[in-house]
Amino acid sequence: MLVQGQPRRTVWLESDGESVGVIDQRRLPFSFETLTLRSTEDAARAIRDMAVRGAGCIGAVAAHGMFLAARECEREGLAGGAFDAAFAEKGQELRATRPTAVNLAWAVERQLAAVASVVSASDKTAVARDTACAVADEDADFCRRIGEHGLPILRKIFESKGGKTPVNILTHCNAGWLAFVDHGSATAPIYAAHAAGIPVHVWVDETRPRNQGARLTAWELGQQGVPHTLIVDNAGGHLMQHGRVDLVITGTDRTTYSGDVANKIGTYLKALAARDNGVPFYVALPSSSFDWEIADGLTGIPIEERGGEEVSRIGGWSGEAESEIEVNLVAKGTPVANFAFDVTPARFVTGLITERGVCPATESGIRALFPEKVPAPARV
Amino acid sequence: MLVQGQPRRTVWLESDGESVGVIDQRRLPFSFETLTLRSTEDAARAIRDMAVRGAGCIGAVAAHGMFLAARECEREGLAGGAFDAAFAEKGQELRATRPTAVNLAWAVERQLAAVASVVSASDKTAVARDTACAVADEDADFCRRIGEHGLPILRKIFESKGGKTPVNILTHCNAGWLAFVDHGSATAPIYAAHAAGIPVHVWVDETRPRNQGARLTAWELGQQGVPHTLIVDNAGGHLMQHGRVDLVITGTDRTTYSGDVANKIGTYLKALAARDNGVPFYVALPSSSFDWEIADGLTGIPIEERGGEEVSRIGGWSGEAESEIEVNLVAKGTPVANFAFDVTPARFVTGLITERGVCPATESGIRALFPEKVPAPARV
Repeated sequence: MLVQGQPRRTVWLESDGESVGVIDQRRLPFSFETLTLRSTEDAARAIRDMAVRGAGCIGAVAAHGMFLAARECEREGLAGGAFDAAFAEKGQELRATRPTAVNLAWAVERQLAAVASVVSASDKTAVARDTACAVADEDADFCRRIGEHGLPILRKIFESKGGKTPVNILTHCNAGWLAFVDHGSATAPIYAAHAAGIPVHVWVDETRPRNQGARLTAWELGQQGVPHTLIVDNAGGHLMQHGRVDLVITGTDRTTYSGDVANKIGTYLKALAARDNGVPFYVALPSSSFDWEIADGLTGIPIEERGGEEVSRIGGWSGEAESEIEVNLVAKGTPVANFAFDVTPARFVTGLITERGVCPATESGIRALFPEKVPAPARV
Repeated sequence: MLVQGQPRRTVWLESDGESVGVIDQRRLPFSFETLTLRSTEDAARAIRDMAVRGAGCIGAVAAHGMFLAARECEREGLAGGAFDAAFAEKGQELRATRPTAVNLAWAVERQLAAVASVVSASDKTAVARDTACAVADEDADFCRRIGEHGLPILRKIFESKGGKTPVNILTHCNAGWLAFVDHGSATAPIYAAHAAGIPVHVWVDETRPRNQGARLTAWELGQQGVPHTLIVDNAGGHLMQHGRVDLVITGTDRTTYSGDVANKIGTYLKALAARDNGVPFYVALPSSSFDWEIADGLTGIPIEERGGEEVSRIGGWSGEAESEIEVNLVAKGTPVANFAFDVTPARFVTGLITERGVCPATESGIRALFPEKVPAPARV
């Protein structure tokens, strides 16, 4: 999508064919900066230090990191089994940066298998380069298709409102293109509608504690020229009570095969408000976000608890300092808890927007779209 | 309640009998400071600049400001009608500081009537002093009684849980003693239970955008030695889903005679989560917070929209600067909306805890406790 009027992705092969570029998301929205990754260690650091974040984005950066790893093996004069062993070790280094990121592990495994299929060092490097580009292209393509499948939902609402006033979408956190390679998941139908000339307006939840809505989603939409308004997470219910939200679209970190949606903390509260006010609540996701092992999201999905300093401190721009500074928001010693995600039960979800189409948030609905997947027996 | 181990109120007559002390709430929780008010203008400035805030607290400070006003009139040698005219003008100055604060106007009117009932300047000043103290004492006493009436609710939950584990209460914003003269409204039953030896633990919503929960409620509870944990506003639903909240108690800015509750933005979302998880949702209020004119809160109560900079900027303590500093949280030019309150429909409210007892959030329930009040005909 656009940054300063230029089309961008979150990760790309540099024109030298030897290094990888990524957007440094830590500096957004105050400063747009990119990083050049020249080694496996550079890629690992970018993931570990959260210069890049979001499932699809991390996976694609890891795939590109594996290309850099292959180059290193080739330069070290390795070949055959020795190459593969060193390559696997570098893969392990990448995997260790975010042990719970499913897409990261998946991207590394895919590269290992691809590289093992050819013999010469130069072929292995070429295959790793092609695979990295394929991973990024597929991620972007899946998101683009989520946009295509979500577009009719927005068009229908636009028309049902008389075809003149904007469609008001509320979203939570950043399930935008910064979390993937391009388009995003929750944002894909919005960008598709905007591109199709359907007027849209997005209510952007700031999404405490890490404020990914305020920092990333609002910035993304602004760069693309999509009308939007930033609100605190507390405001969505009031807006829905007063008819100012036509639908909610969020992303998901993990969705069970029964349709329960784990997403950024606070998503559940918006789903409750949507239900109470008759507002459709959609979740957009590439199928890689389905968990085919868990039947009951509330009991089965572990909820990460993170450090309390994410709540008690916040980063911002003072206008005087050279860079962002952190300030304390609470008295010293205040006890703080920081739950990263919550689970929205499937009964509150109007539909799931995937790369294959829209389905109900039910096991049968999901299986109808993904018949090749075999859910594990319910474990509860 | 306690500050650094000493009992405090938010406003008091200083021992010189000529000046008024207040807690400067703007510096909390980073620094505990008090202000000495020596003139009507001092009192007006304290209210206007939000050194003091909260309905009960503002009313009591205004009543004390009127005592300072009476002293000024006496010193200027005024008496009789001239005294009353000048006194009324100073009352107008105080009222203009926060035009929508009902308790402020009420306190000024009460002082005007009291002072008009006596003749000599010295009697007028003495009456104004006594009235100021009476307003503060009554506010504190009403809150104390809210605590007495709420205590059995907490005791019953404590016993129903087996009498060993703490009662977990979630609260939103600051309806604590800082918003009144003492005890608070939502916090009064909590302080009463704590004093009665019932173990309690409070989940404190930080309450964006102004963070009164993080800054004031957490500080209050900490000073009183009440166990508590600060959370982001997004977290309450997750906690309720997992049985970690036994009841919700909030305050209210205005409650209709039909039981609809206007309170800090985000209250409605917690009421929805409480309903979905079978958690009781109580609202604590002195009867001065009832609006006897409005039947339908959603259509009848105007919701204040405040400046977007409350969302896009935040104050905190850097640890280096001498005082609090403000930082920008979002990119320049980001459109922001800032709704200050929302309305929780009466159907989500388990009960109202007032100074006269607990009643259902229904017109008949409220009228049974306050039979002398005559609601206006529904205006919708």
